[in-house]
Amino acid sequence: MKEKNSNPSRRKFIQQTAIASAGLLLVNPISIFSQTNKSKKMSTNIKSKGYAGNDEVGKLTAWNFERRAVGDNDILIDIKFSGICHSDIHMVKGHWGKQQYPLVPGHEIAGIVTAVGKNVTKFKVGDQAGVGAMVNSCMQCDSCKSSQEQHCETTGMVETYGMPEKSSPTGITQGGYANNIVVTEHFAIKIPATIKLKYAAPLLCAGITTYSPMMKMKFKKGDKIGVVGIGGLGHIAVKLAVSKGAKVFAFTTSASKVKDIKCFGAKEVIVVQSAEDLKPYKGKLDYMISTVPYAYEMSPYIDCVKPYGFFTQVGEPINGILEINNFNMTQNRVNFNGSLIGGIQETQEMMDYCAKNKIYPQVEVIKASEINEAWDKVVNKKAHYRFVIDATTF
Amino acid sequence: MKEKNSNPSRRKFIQQTAIASAGLLLVNPISIFSQTNKSKKMSTNIKSKGYAGNDEVGKLTAWNFERRAVGDNDILIDIKFSGICHSDIHMVKGHWGKQQYPLVPGHEIAGIVTAVGKNVTKFKVGDQAGVGAMVNSCMQCDSCKSSQEQHCETTGMVETYGMPEKSSPTGITQGGYANNIVVTEHFAIKIPATIKLKYAAPLLCAGITTYSPMMKMKFKKGDKIGVVGIGGLGHIAVKLAVSKGAKVFAFTTSASKVKDIKCFGAKEVIVVQSAEDLKPYKGKLDYMISTVPYAYEMSPYIDCVKPYGFFTQVGEPINGILEINNFNMTQNRVNFNGSLIGGIQETQEMMDYCAKNKIYPQVEVIKASEINEAWDKVVNKKAHYRFVIDATTF
Repeated sequence: MKEKNSNPSRRKFIQQTAIASAGLLLVNPISIFSQTNKSKKMSTNIKSKGYAGNDEVGKLTAWNFERRAVGDNDILIDIKFSGICHSDIHMVKGHWGKQQYPLVPGHEIAGIVTAVGKNVTKFKVGDQAGVGAMVNSCMQCDSCKSSQEQHCETTGMVETYGMPEKSSPTGITQGGYANNIVVTEHFAIKIPATIKLKYAAPLLCAGITTYSPMMKMKFKKGDKIGVVGIGGLGHIAVKLAVSKGAKVFAFTTSASKVKDIKCFGAKEVIVVQSAEDLKPYKGKLDYMISTVPYAYEMSPYIDCVKPYGFFTQVGEPINGILEINNFNMTQNRVNFNGSLIGGIQETQEMMDYCAKNKIYPQVEVIKASEINEAWDKVVNKKAHYRFVIDATTF
Repeated sequence: MKEKNSNPSRRKFIQQTAIASAGLLLVNPISIFSQTNKSKKMSTNIKSKGYAGNDEVGKLTAWNFERRAVGDNDILIDIKFSGICHSDIHMVKGHWGKQQYPLVPGHEIAGIVTAVGKNVTKFKVGDQAGVGAMVNSCMQCDSCKSSQEQHCETTGMVETYGMPEKSSPTGITQGGYANNIVVTEHFAIKIPATIKLKYAAPLLCAGITTYSPMMKMKFKKGDKIGVVGIGGLGHIAVKLAVSKGAKVFAFTTSASKVKDIKCFGAKEVIVVQSAEDLKPYKGKLDYMISTVPYAYEMSPYIDCVKPYGFFTQVGEPINGILEINNFNMTQNRVNFNGSLIGGIQETQEMMDYCAKNKIYPQVEVIKASEINEAWDKVVNKKAHYRFVIDATTF
């Protein structure tokens, strides 16, 4: 959709590297693509095993498919863990627009590099590497040059799954609910050896999506930060804000989460049953971030921010549509904005920060066969707090 | 509604000065309330002739009613001109909530001071004076003390009409579609002798509502400012922004207005028939203000602002409800906010600025009997650009 023909050199490169042939690629990838001989045998499509959605019903089933061969600038990652993001559910179910199926979701991908193209310098075989919600962009425009690839002004960012992609044997990008992925090295994140891959995976979407807008706020130690919706994104937002010295006010509709959220470091946990519960916080917070992935009554939350403060909505509802009450906006004087993941440089910064400061998502590791059940739990707010798929079970 | 009993001293003052009695007050007000004897004969209710809405149908009819007597801190204004704001229509028709009838609308009021209470220092009989959209507030809270009376934190601002007000013989505040008004001097604006009252009237709502958020932006000479909706508010926004050195891009759905808007100084006038017409302006403007008083497809307009810029919605739709698309917001990175008139000090600053710089609304003076027809024209975007009622015709 966002993939245009405005970048013929990239198209040409992709076509050149996408010549399909049979391969034994995964038998012993390290020896085949050794560092000393890394430019050879690159023209073989990669066989992949994953779970795919087949229609808008959104029940995933096992699926064998192919990825493009590892190009000169690509790395092949043997996926170890793949996080389940609410976006996966929205996307597969067509909540954000029509999709092509089979569609392998997943954009919180962490694994080990098993092959590198001849031009690759950022990774070597054996490194921990991750992929988030984007796998390409034009790399020529001002946004790309300033590491705001997610705001690429020509092709738009190429999302990790579901985007038209000529280099892909299935015609679209396919995500991380699978045992491997091929990605341009630029769009892979180095995962420090000090952080376990199961913790690193959720940081690649949930982490950066909350880190990026919060860091833009340059909040000071002791500032009051509100987090709305304490699920996969929200619980990381709490931990990040606490780590940066904020007093965190966590707003949840799940009374059962209070104890956990206190453990994450929140100063106060507010269980919201009606707008009345928000009134004591009116105009009290310096900043607020909402991760709620459905349309909801936003105004009483926005009202909690101090005049001239900012409220960021990162959760994306069905078709993106939210209702805003301008009576409230004229009174509360809050600036409402959205935010979309972060650039590659900032994602690396976030990953390094989390590794160094031991900011680990609270994960529940599941098998591939448990994905559908996990999805139901995510929709019903029963995830505590991020399901992560053990990719050896695909 | 917003009137609470949290300010007993104000209540007491109002009750004390609201003792009704018959009076010949308007026969020769200047001589009765001379400056040398201004504390006497203050306990007489003021007879007033105006036009009122009687129900949500919104057809106005002539109505005689009483205002409170002129208190020690009040002035009596002989209204000369009263502007017609789209808010008047929304309010009387119950678009913003239920009303008490008869209801005299009007909050763009300009006239001559004909009486002053004994404590009044800001005005003398014979001065030009105006009243905008508020007539009281607690004057004790931080907002009131910092001349942000419109954001009064205790009682809320008392709107010029339709608000419960014990001092008013009708039980609610009554607005400016009438031949006179009594108002606390603090909430009256001094209108310089150099500006005609028919021009001053619309500045008191349309002027300050656009001036206040635009001035907060502190835009630089040559910055590109977009104005959406070129009616009563929008055409003043264009003139103000041009006067402050901006390059103004005016967005209208009325092709018939193009020539006028160019005359107001706009650099470009864009006649918008569909979202396609907005695409060339995507990400181009430094700031945008929308005066559209109905729900509309905001996103393609918001997209016209540069990343991290601001978009202010001052037009208030039915029940305040607007739809916002968060897919657009995450991409455009624009901050959306609302804005509500301005404080008294800022309103005075705006009035003085407009008088000094000859920023005059384009007005069409009508008789009281023409109000209903004018309202229809306002709703149908046929006003060019502000109807102003000649108050001698009430």
